[in-house]
Amino acid sequence: MSSRNLLFMLVDYTGRIAETNEVFDTTIKEDAEKNNLLIRDEELQPKLIIPGSGWFPKGLEEALISMKKGEEKEIEVPPEKGYGPRDVSKIRTYPLRKFRNISDLKPGVQVEIDGRIGTVRLIRSGRVQVDFNPPLAGRTLIYHVKVKDIIRNRLLRVKHLIKRRIPSLKIEDIKVNIKESTVTIELPSESYTTQGIQIIKNAIYNDITKYIPSITEVVFVERYGAPKKKVKTTPSKRKKSKKASIST
Amino acid sequence: MSSRNLLFMLVDYTGRIAETNEVFDTTIKEDAEKNNLLIRDEELQPKLIIPGSGWFPKGLEEALISMKKGEEKEIEVPPEKGYGPRDVSKIRTYPLRKFRNISDLKPGVQVEIDGRIGTVRLIRSGRVQVDFNPPLAGRTLIYHVKVKDIIRNRLLRVKHLIKRRIPSLKIEDIKVNIKESTVTIELPSESYTTQGIQIIKNAIYNDITKYIPSITEVVFVERYGAPKKKVKTTPSKRKKSKKASIST
Repeated sequence: MSSRNLLFMLVDYTGRIAETNEVFDTTIKEDAEKNNLLIRDEELQPKLIIPGSGWFPKGLEEALISMKKGEEKEIEVPPEKGYGPRDVSKIRTYPLRKFRNISDLKPGVQVEIDGRIGTVRLIRSGRVQVDFNPPLAGRTLIYHVKVKDIIRNRLLRVKHLIKRRIPSLKIEDIKVNIKESTVTIELPSESYTTQGIQIIKNAIYNDITKYIPSITEVVFVERYGAPKKKVKTTPSKRKKSKKASIST
Repeated sequence: MSSRNLLFMLVDYTGRIAETNEVFDTTIKEDAEKNNLLIRDEELQPKLIIPGSGWFPKGLEEALISMKKGEEKEIEVPPEKGYGPRDVSKIRTYPLRKFRNISDLKPGVQVEIDGRIGTVRLIRSGRVQVDFNPPLAGRTLIYHVKVKDIIRNRLLRVKHLIKRRIPSLKIEDIKVNIKESTVTIELPSESYTTQGIQIIKNAIYNDITKYIPSITEVVFVERYGAPKKKVKTTPSKRKKSKKASIST
């Protein structure tokens, strides 16, 4: 991936398996509900896709490159540009007794064996067939995509890279400042206690310096308490400034 | 506790039980070794004591108030100014079978029963006596103390409040800046992944605003990566600046 000409796209999509029409992922609330997909609300928003990053199947990322803001399209992704071909050598059979500790063993259930995650395919005559291929391997995928936005502003690019790691954040609640090669980030205080926040911050640093190469340093600022200030607000003013909030 | 006239003292001490002469705590490496106390090196340094804070027994804190830098003293702390009197109603007897899961049950071992921590006192005829008093309750304590320093500088006070929560830190590795009622703190990057660091930061905020009331806001700055800089160092210079380090 060349770091030049990187595209930061906000994309709504619904992906389904070509042969079965089964929807496996979506950013659209309606589609999630229609297909009984359990997806948290914070994931039901347009997603940041940077073609070339490899976060999404290659076929999807490639097709997006030539799309414009507002454009809608159906993209077919064959296995070789998706989750790879299905490898039959990755299907193994085990005696049923190996699964004694699993109460809800049935086809479709994911199990961990020797550190690898597999999907139960068949249970028959005391034997269990487990498929260690990625669930979508060998499938042709059809993505219905809509490019909601293309982000050119560097500051906004930073914010969306942050939001990708903490999807519950609202873009407008992230404070970002860029000065030369240093970006300073102030997350809302609720995120200070997000599980694994220190690992997330390190990942955000990696993402930003990788996808915005002009930035080499990322500084996180965390604020506890507030300086004593007299907030002068008249009732009439208060009405106007709906978005104003007192940082805690 | 009045916030005025707070004393920030760095104190070396060794505490022993008056009647048995048993050493129970110390900041002195030699005393720890002589008495086979397992204390981590980072705790074998003078400790921050703020008389009135209640971090140490009242009798110890009270006696320290009138001491000067460099002064050494033996302080006797009776139970009522130490860990309180021993309350016999806090001694309970349980059947031995309740402790089946404890392999090394013997007098002196600490056990948890119904969420309370107690010390095993006696094991006899199938019964176990457990004392829920604090281990030093009812004891007269003798502290040998030496006031290593009295800290008057506000910036240094902040640093020592931080070090109290992260004893492994070196004072000179903590960057602190005070502007009006806001203190900005930059910890060395190794501490970013200290277990529970977010809870520690909140505790540091509470400590600072409590014991240095002129400060109302605490800002933590965490730096990932470094701006590209040409470090100009000639070999001769490098020798001089032994303490210089490149922040990462």
